[in-house]
Amino acid sequence: MTTDFLTWSTALQTRMEVVLSNQLPTADIAPKVLHQAMRYAVLEGGKRVRPLLAFAAGEVTQADPARVEIVAAAVELIHAYSLVHDDMPAMDNDVLRRGKPTCHVEFGEATALLVGDSLQTLAFDLLASHTLNDDPLQQLHMIKLLAHASGSRGMAGGQAIDLASVGVALTLPELEFMHIHKTGALIRAAVLLGAYCGQTNLSQIEQLDHYAKCVGLAFQVVDDILDASAPTATLGKTAGKDAADNKPTYVSLLGMADAKSLAASLHQDALAAIQDFEHNQRLRELADFIVQRTF
Amino acid sequence: MTTDFLTWSTALQTRMEVVLSNQLPTADIAPKVLHQAMRYAVLEGGKRVRPLLAFAAGEVTQADPARVEIVAAAVELIHAYSLVHDDMPAMDNDVLRRGKPTCHVEFGEATALLVGDSLQTLAFDLLASHTLNDDPLQQLHMIKLLAHASGSRGMAGGQAIDLASVGVALTLPELEFMHIHKTGALIRAAVLLGAYCGQTNLSQIEQLDHYAKCVGLAFQVVDDILDASAPTATLGKTAGKDAADNKPTYVSLLGMADAKSLAASLHQDALAAIQDFEHNQRLRELADFIVQRTF
Repeated sequence: MTTDFLTWSTALQTRMEVVLSNQLPTADIAPKVLHQAMRYAVLEGGKRVRPLLAFAAGEVTQADPARVEIVAAAVELIHAYSLVHDDMPAMDNDVLRRGKPTCHVEFGEATALLVGDSLQTLAFDLLASHTLNDDPLQQLHMIKLLAHASGSRGMAGGQAIDLASVGVALTLPELEFMHIHKTGALIRAAVLLGAYCGQTNLSQIEQLDHYAKCVGLAFQVVDDILDASAPTATLGKTAGKDAADNKPTYVSLLGMADAKSLAASLHQDALAAIQDFEHNQRLRELADFIVQRTF
Repeated sequence: MTTDFLTWSTALQTRMEVVLSNQLPTADIAPKVLHQAMRYAVLEGGKRVRPLLAFAAGEVTQADPARVEIVAAAVELIHAYSLVHDDMPAMDNDVLRRGKPTCHVEFGEATALLVGDSLQTLAFDLLASHTLNDDPLQQLHMIKLLAHASGSRGMAGGQAIDLASVGVALTLPELEFMHIHKTGALIRAAVLLGAYCGQTNLSQIEQLDHYAKCVGLAFQVVDDILDASAPTATLGKTAGKDAADNKPTYVSLLGMADAKSLAASLHQDALAAIQDFEHNQRLRELADFIVQRTF
């Protein structure tokens, strides 16, 4: 008998807290303030959606969870670094994240800059320092995959497009192009890296990739819906900020009803992409969770 | 007959310009401003000391220059990213670099933040995307080496210690500890990564490592000497800035005469570490250049 989604996800969230805590330098190692701030930015927060996706994809390829936890940590470190830098005054200038003051509010801008820089480095450090696949060439391919997902033609590039789009009337394809980079690329990396810890074949990877693209976009559509409707206390970050900043969102472009329809349609596409897999339970549940979440 | 140092180094500087230009995304790929700014931050500037060290170490281990140029580019991208972030208002707040306006002055702070982030990612991308050693496990070790040199216990950590030391009366060991991290770690990585592209043995690596530590510290001592004595136009960056910012330097701690003696002593130690190697000509010349340079 398999456990329910809540039990599974809660256990993995706890596991990831331990993994991340073990991989981050302790706050008694010099430079102490930097290490304290890195831990502040990563630990005790977040839904760990990307790690959960990595574990769920790893179930499909029967990957060793001891390997998946490392790629999950690496992806989460990239995600955490991007939040620290995105929250800074030069970018989104946000003061609240996961219910706590943002890193630069708590530690100052200079330290926050170095925290983001160091978290990114640590992500690549993890992927190079642990055995993640019996074939080291495959492991090099995994590192390349994370780099492509994170860099100027992935996540960081998406952030640049986002910056350039403030106050600009984007079309739906332009908004989608931005999100495919800004959030989609790293979600896709989470799924594929989890899968690559196990035995994969090309058609399976292609279907997982399609699942990841749908889930990634659905995640963003739902984020926009929640940002437009949920209170700050529920979100753990400043609500209504995108609208206040005059940023285009799925809700501002499509209206609330059509944004909800789009989320539902992406949800169905995600489920269809993985329907033929054995051991797809957690991927299915995660697609459900990402669309149905209220925070 | 081998070429002289100037001919050798000029040819490699030209080669690195081509390599870096080829590896950086072109400015016509979206997001265009980000890619334009990345190219601005990296190309047409710098002495390329770290790439030269990588090539010189590669000569000792008879490494394929086509492999060395990739590790040299990766190290230079890490160096360039650190300059972009260090120059930002939250850190050193410098407006001039390599004779040009700094990246955030030219492109704005948000773009500069993403430029640094993306250059770091590209460095790891390069190390994962090219064959650098016949043994992929050795290549994974090389990626780990660059990560350790760059992260919170290497270069970024050194920058954090530097920030915390403004206006503080450091001792000589504390100043050395900072520089071993802030500049020494990446210089050491340049030497070792160049060597690891060829055939290495442990005692050779240990001697190269000692050479790199001495050259790295000498580089910083000479930087402090030049900062205290050379005009801005010669340096291509704001002269006297460390003293004006009340930052401890070798000159402020030791005085000019003893700082020069320390540079000379480190120079001799560096040469002694590699004296038994065949093909050590370029490493010797680089140690000479680093200590005798006037810019």
